[in-house]
Amino acid sequence: MVQKVWGGRFKEETDVLVNKFNASIGFDQRLYAQDIEGSIAHCLMLARQGIITDDEASQISNALRTIKRGLDRGEFRLDDSYEDIHTFVEKTLIEKIGAIGEKLHTGRSRNDQVALDIRLYVRHVIEKILGLIKEVETSFILLADNNFDVVMPGYTHMQRAQPVLLAHHLLAYYEMLKRDEKRYEETLKRVNILPLGSAALAGSTFDLDREMVAKELGFEGISQNSMDAVSDRDFVLDFLFSSSVLMMHLSRISEELVIWSSQEFGFVLISDAFCTGSSIMPQKKNPDLPELIRGKTGRVYGDLISLLTAMKGLPLSYNKDMQEDKEALFDAVDTVEICLLVMARLLGNVSFSSERMRAASEKGFLTATDLADYLVRKGMTFREAHEVVGKIVLFAIENKKELHELTLHEMKSFTIRIDEDVYDWLDTISCINRRNIPGGTGSDMVRKSIARAKEELGI
Amino acid sequence: MVQKVWGGRFKEETDVLVNKFNASIGFDQRLYAQDIEGSIAHCLMLARQGIITDDEASQISNALRTIKRGLDRGEFRLDDSYEDIHTFVEKTLIEKIGAIGEKLHTGRSRNDQVALDIRLYVRHVIEKILGLIKEVETSFILLADNNFDVVMPGYTHMQRAQPVLLAHHLLAYYEMLKRDEKRYEETLKRVNILPLGSAALAGSTFDLDREMVAKELGFEGISQNSMDAVSDRDFVLDFLFSSSVLMMHLSRISEELVIWSSQEFGFVLISDAFCTGSSIMPQKKNPDLPELIRGKTGRVYGDLISLLTAMKGLPLSYNKDMQEDKEALFDAVDTVEICLLVMARLLGNVSFSSERMRAASEKGFLTATDLADYLVRKGMTFREAHEVVGKIVLFAIENKKELHELTLHEMKSFTIRIDEDVYDWLDTISCINRRNIPGGTGSDMVRKSIARAKEELGI
Amino acid sequence: MVQKVWGGRFKEETDVLVNKFNASIGFDQRLYAQDIEGSIAHCLMLARQGIITDDEASQISNALRTIKRGLDRGEFRLDDSYEDIHTFVEKTLIEKIGAIGEKLHTGRSRNDQVALDIRLYVRHVIEKILGLIKEVETSFILLADNNFDVVMPGYTHMQRAQPVLLAHHLLAYYEMLKRDEKRYEETLKRVNILPLGSAALAGSTFDLDREMVAKELGFEGISQNSMDAVSDRDFVLDFLFSSSVLMMHLSRISEELVIWSSQEFGFVLISDAFCTGSSIMPQKKNPDLPELIRGKTGRVYGDLISLLTAMKGLPLSYNKDMQEDKEALFDAVDTVEICLLVMARLLGNVSFSSERMRAASEKGFLTATDLADYLVRKGMTFREAHEVVGKIVLFAIENKKELHELTLHEMKSFTIRIDEDVYDWLDTISCINRRNIPGGTGSDMVRKSIARAKEELGI
Amino acid sequence: MVQKVWGGRFKEETDVLVNKFNASIGFDQRLYAQDIEGSIAHCLMLARQGIITDDEASQISNALRTIKRGLDRGEFRLDDSYEDIHTFVEKTLIEKIGAIGEKLHTGRSRNDQVALDIRLYVRHVIEKILGLIKEVETSFILLADNNFDVVMPGYTHMQRAQPVLLAHHLLAYYEMLKRDEKRYEETLKRVNILPLGSAALAGSTFDLDREMVAKELGFEGISQNSMDAVSDRDFVLDFLFSSSVLMMHLSRISEELVIWSSQEFGFVLISDAFCTGSSIMPQKKNPDLPELIRGKTGRVYGDLISLLTAMKGLPLSYNKDMQEDKEALFDAVDTVEICLLVMARLLGNVSFSSERMRAASEKGFLTATDLADYLVRKGMTFREAHEVVGKIVLFAIENKKELHELTLHEMKSFTIRIDEDVYDWLDTISCINRRNIPGGTGSDMVRKSIARAKEELGI
Repeated sequence: MVQKVWGGRFKEETDVLVNKFNASIGFDQRLYAQDIEGSIAHCLMLARQGIITDDEASQISNALRTIKRGLDRGEFRLDDSYEDIHTFVEKTLIEKIGAIGEKLHTGRSRNDQVALDIRLYVRHVIEKILGLIKEVETSFILLADNNFDVVMPGYTHMQRAQPVLLAHHLLAYYEMLKRDEKRYEETLKRVNILPLGSAALAGSTFDLDREMVAKELGFEGISQNSMDAVSDRDFVLDFLFSSSVLMMHLSRISEELVIWSSQEFGFVLISDAFCTGSSIMPQKKNPDLPELIRGKTGRVYGDLISLLTAMKGLPLSYNKDMQEDKEALFDAVDTVEICLLVMARLLGNVSFSSERMRAASEKGFLTATDLADYLVRKGMTFREAHEVVGKIVLFAIENKKELHELTLHEMKSFTIRIDEDVYDWLDTISCINRRNIPGGTGSDMVRKSIARAKEELGI
Repeated sequence: MVQKVWGGRFKEETDVLVNKFNASIGFDQRLYAQDIEGSIAHCLMLARQGIITDDEASQISNALRTIKRGLDRGEFRLDDSYEDIHTFVEKTLIEKIGAIGEKLHTGRSRNDQVALDIRLYVRHVIEKILGLIKEVETSFILLADNNFDVVMPGYTHMQRAQPVLLAHHLLAYYEMLKRDEKRYEETLKRVNILPLGSAALAGSTFDLDREMVAKELGFEGISQNSMDAVSDRDFVLDFLFSSSVLMMHLSRISEELVIWSSQEFGFVLISDAFCTGSSIMPQKKNPDLPELIRGKTGRVYGDLISLLTAMKGLPLSYNKDMQEDKEALFDAVDTVEICLLVMARLLGNVSFSSERMRAASEKGFLTATDLADYLVRKGMTFREAHEVVGKIVLFAIENKKELHELTLHEMKSFTIRIDEDVYDWLDTISCINRRNIPGGTGSDMVRKSIARAKEELGI
Repeated sequence: MVQKVWGGRFKEETDVLVNKFNASIGFDQRLYAQDIEGSIAHCLMLARQGIITDDEASQISNALRTIKRGLDRGEFRLDDSYEDIHTFVEKTLIEKIGAIGEKLHTGRSRNDQVALDIRLYVRHVIEKILGLIKEVETSFILLADNNFDVVMPGYTHMQRAQPVLLAHHLLAYYEMLKRDEKRYEETLKRVNILPLGSAALAGSTFDLDREMVAKELGFEGISQNSMDAVSDRDFVLDFLFSSSVLMMHLSRISEELVIWSSQEFGFVLISDAFCTGSSIMPQKKNPDLPELIRGKTGRVYGDLISLLTAMKGLPLSYNKDMQEDKEALFDAVDTVEICLLVMARLLGNVSFSSERMRAASEKGFLTATDLADYLVRKGMTFREAHEVVGKIVLFAIENKKELHELTLHEMKSFTIRIDEDVYDWLDTISCINRRNIPGGTGSDMVRKSIARAKEELGI
Repeated sequence: MVQKVWGGRFKEETDVLVNKFNASIGFDQRLYAQDIEGSIAHCLMLARQGIITDDEASQISNALRTIKRGLDRGEFRLDDSYEDIHTFVEKTLIEKIGAIGEKLHTGRSRNDQVALDIRLYVRHVIEKILGLIKEVETSFILLADNNFDVVMPGYTHMQRAQPVLLAHHLLAYYEMLKRDEKRYEETLKRVNILPLGSAALAGSTFDLDREMVAKELGFEGISQNSMDAVSDRDFVLDFLFSSSVLMMHLSRISEELVIWSSQEFGFVLISDAFCTGSSIMPQKKNPDLPELIRGKTGRVYGDLISLLTAMKGLPLSYNKDMQEDKEALFDAVDTVEICLLVMARLLGNVSFSSERMRAASEKGFLTATDLADYLVRKGMTFREAHEVVGKIVLFAIENKKELHELTLHEMKSFTIRIDEDVYDWLDTISCINRRNIPGGTGSDMVRKSIARAKEELGI
């Protein structure tokens, strides 16, 4: 027999398959702590408002705390014999303290209750995720700091473009993660609104003190419209989108770790403990972790599309379709948490081959832009300089030389503006440090960025 | 200690978190029957080709069957101490029969093994889903048959358009489901190809008889390129897409059941056993099932996007990202199976209000097209007839009458072509039966369609 | 001959098909105003920093303004003979003023230039969209105000639940739109960052004053890492997500307008000027506009998925894939703008049938919750009250009566706690006004919400 | 004044904004040839059935052909003054031949007409796309044939795994494209069904010969249910999905071309004519084409999601939301066509560096699996062999040697089963040719695959 909080109006027993299909306890049990926290706040307020007595409130909240402890310890079996976690908590409460427990749901509906529980839950996970993002950021900053002198080719279109500091490259990811933080923090603001008091859809008929409950639960404000409050899942969408962008960022890091781990690049070495092997090829050491993170990106995108689709075209107010918010949410939470954790640890277990990176940055005409800029300083217009250097590069390719390997005579055959000082100018480190502009790869600037990041991270 | 099928080349023990993140046994255990089925076929072939002895093959396959029975009975604990289900089966085999078990993996890699397992699994679930689709189709045909005389308004843009038979409306869903069948059957063809023998990516060095294994496992053919075979997940995408379209169809049926259940429409009554109530509103009887099916549509779309994203831009051949095919697949399988089952049962528990449907089909000028067609038969061009009838409708609205309530005099004031016979012409049943064209709502045609469907379904 | 800003290094002419495929001018011409605005700011700064002379800057910026005016007037033919709008502007400049124009690109790359242009563009469209959202909000508030006395059934699961004010229902959408505003404003903050100075990827070698350019262009700050700056499209994703949620909200309004326009509901009448007809059915008047808005929701979701997919797994820094940000962005901009405009106008052209809404709210036991709350006030626990009222409702259904049509005797047979005062209690207006809690449908509360909204909107 | 085919019932003129928003002629003009082809077949049938005269049919069809020629030549201005292309054609016909033209729409609605037009269009584009796929397939086969002797490392996880023939790698893409062909062909079957005769939704009242029209237009059959026929867009979804998978395949090829073009890999050289440069970096030669194809993958995924979303939860039968099928379809068609064309041409303009590929395949222990298989042949179990070879590889790494560079003595220290014959066994070409199993990389097998492909392609 399935336990429900409705039924007086029904003549037939619910079909077994229907119970199974309809029940959410299989997944919404994850909300039990939030459900009880919300119920306690609600019941204290009911007492303060004189809707129940202080003694009743005390009995109810004590019993709820006991149930919470039991759930923490795994003492209950949460199966499909309850419709959902809300029903389980209420029914268990009534079993424990009898009729007084039947008063808890006064002035409340599952519609506003579930909205409350998810908000409390999302608030909780965002705080956790913010901590994990900081761990990944810290990993990046430590890597940047510890490898400050490493020079590498900066790429566009996967083609070597200009030499940069590896630290500068790593700091780009720090910036992305800072935006992710910001996005989650903004989501948090929209999450942190109390829906309780909206009841089924039209507001409660009892004289509830919503502000008191909001304060008790640490919310920043109360919802302004009951019909919106019970049918609003924007904040879950916000969370799923923030998570999608975060995963996209992680997928980019991952792509680079995979490519850099290839024998052809050989830029990075992931420690044995963070790689896996093959069941058939004894020599294989595979960068499974970044591959898996990259692969899991699609999963969070899917969670986002799932809820966007479910919400499309729903009339007001609550519709059962919205129950589908939870599994998408939980899947994204689990995915994001483990991926951040793994990424933070993984970054602590890589080592860079500064020799291969340096060598790569010195082959492929990465200083061609600097040569053009040199010519501008010698009086050419930028467009003309660009054209001239393009021709010099073509000449160098055909003669299998790098730019700094050309003789002054060879260079001068393209333009007389080139002088002996060009060789110093084309030195890789000079090229890097010349970009001494805010946001640039010049080592002073990068050093400042690391310092700023350390301050932000408190490390 | 986690058990793996690699490691000789590794100096450090795999990190605990890595094992947890990397392990797929938490979900791929669902493939155990397929894994063992495939292994037995492989080992028989190894013996036939003289790569192992008949006695070894017999020991291996017997032990595998024992393991299968143990798994069927839930005798093993499948936790993260094994990397995946393939490792579990192989390690358990070796525990049972020692070194002989170590020969099973000869000429095989997990890359082609997992491709095989998923193919066997998808084949299995498609067959199951085809059966469930037939159940829903049967429900529709029985409903159509049992409510053959029910007349209802056909809608476009949710506006009453022309009267139709309810049976005709229901048969539209039958057609959609027939296409779904077709789509799964086509998927099946692409699934039913043996990848084994591709080994890691380049093909096996052993003299395997792939055709024999294919025959043994009931495949229609063997894969033609080993690198493609281990990195191909098209058939999973095919499955996810077929499932997305199916869910879209179910969402349309569901939308109609929800709307028709509203008090305003009152076209359909879902039995108590297939509805649920409210924790606060004692009068509520909600059509949760169709709402939930509609809501789950997004979930399967999400699964599709998840894998499409994961596969985007992956170089050849196998990459770990592909491990993410499984949970999306399993989630879609579970969703589609339960939704079909629920829909089939739900359709057996609805009753239609033929009075309300009939009444609705007689209000709202649903016969206006027939009046225009009447005028065409009296010699007007269709465009002129359309314009004239538009004006008559406007007149009728302003005079709060239906078309058949207008006097002949009133009608003749718009065109003298209208005669007394117009009243018979505008009768709802006449309008329906006039559409006696293949595919039309005329009762002869609908009767034929039901008969054809019954034959197709063997009912 | 296609005009390009590169080529010195190339030996072969670009293939015609390649030019066609590669060229973005077909769509990025939309950015011309932003491109020129950015170029002028860049050139003024170059002069201030002494990289070009004041006179050169003056010639360049004047010529750019002339080109802008020409483009405004449609005087140029922007075809595939230019690679992109940036090339067009620079080439046209050089045509006009010769070699001096060749200096404009000093210290700049198309990579940071295009990032700048899109940021300026997105900033511009967000401001426009914020204005349009306010128009829709205003439409809602005016509708709510003008129909303040209209009572309607509040729905959950499309089933009548509790009576509410139509104004309260409409205000729910106001709340959604307020969140949309907020989301776009947050996006704006992330948009409003200057990327210029990042050059190709590593920062410029010239002594650019980035802060000056930022101030000139009204940006709030400058990007902190050049590699991130040229490969960051987060802000476009933010925009597409904000737009997806907005469209989801519009799809919900639209769904309701379509359903309410059905003959069965008959709650709303859209004026002829905002409906369309049928080519065959002369009587049809279809709510095409809300249907089309609802249908366009998927389109913006698609734009979001398009860019999320394109960005997945891209290594640093700029990759050509990112060119695909623009058409998705432009499509979403056009869709959102027209849908908001149409919705604002449409809402000004609907009228509600207060009779049908009122009648609907009085049939279907919408006061059952209030009866339960009544019993709570008479001393019952809520759960008991819910059960009792469920039974009363069942009795009423079987006797074809509404709750207020039951005799006191009949009611008392379920519980003696019911007295004569129950009839006043069950009055629809009483039920509404009893929800006199912040966020509830009580008329005082709704009046306050309207007043607050008017203040926010300045109307 | 906008021209419409309805209006008699309307009192107010349609709002200008509504016309703009509602009109589809801006994009559905692409269907003009199909619209006219369908109309001619319809009118011939009307005459055959005696609904219009032969003379009328002749006048109508001649005029339609004239209009078609005018449209071919761009003689008409198709702006928003017509609601859609169907209205344009009909109105223009009536202008040309007067009242007789007003008879064309007899027995037809735009609902079945537009379904017909899209089907004819999709059939047309699939045929075109099938041709383009064959071109890409041909490019692959020619590349494989012309580079038959090139040896390269096969990769899993982007790590060198086993040596393969480049031709074998290229043939993997041939297999993918063969599946794409199949998928489009299956779509074609579902497309090739005549919807005409379904009229608005319920079937026509005229005695139409649907089979005759189907035959005339080359359809394989007629739709079986009119309500389904006007609200079915499955075939467009089928097309969008087939296109999504195709793009996913192209994105994988593209990823490889991009990675292989990197200086680090240096496996492939794309000719100058198929690359582009940088506005700032004179040395850059970027693989824009594969990047852009990869980026456009998301676009087609977005088109698919767009229509899946639009169709979700739509009640029967036609709803205006469905108008949103067209732009998603057209966008996907354009994207797929150009990407295939570019890919076919691009593949004809690449050259492989057989030296770098060969060198890469000889470094990284790619023969380790073969060494394990060797030990199996010498009597070891596979698992033991795998473990032993893992240890040999570790030893080799630490001694900076490849496997074939180890002395026999060194190898024997791991197992005495290794003999002098191991050196021949570990030769790269031997390793390749040992995989002489159907689907394997052995050169005999690859040669057969190329021969088979040539036969299939008729080259």
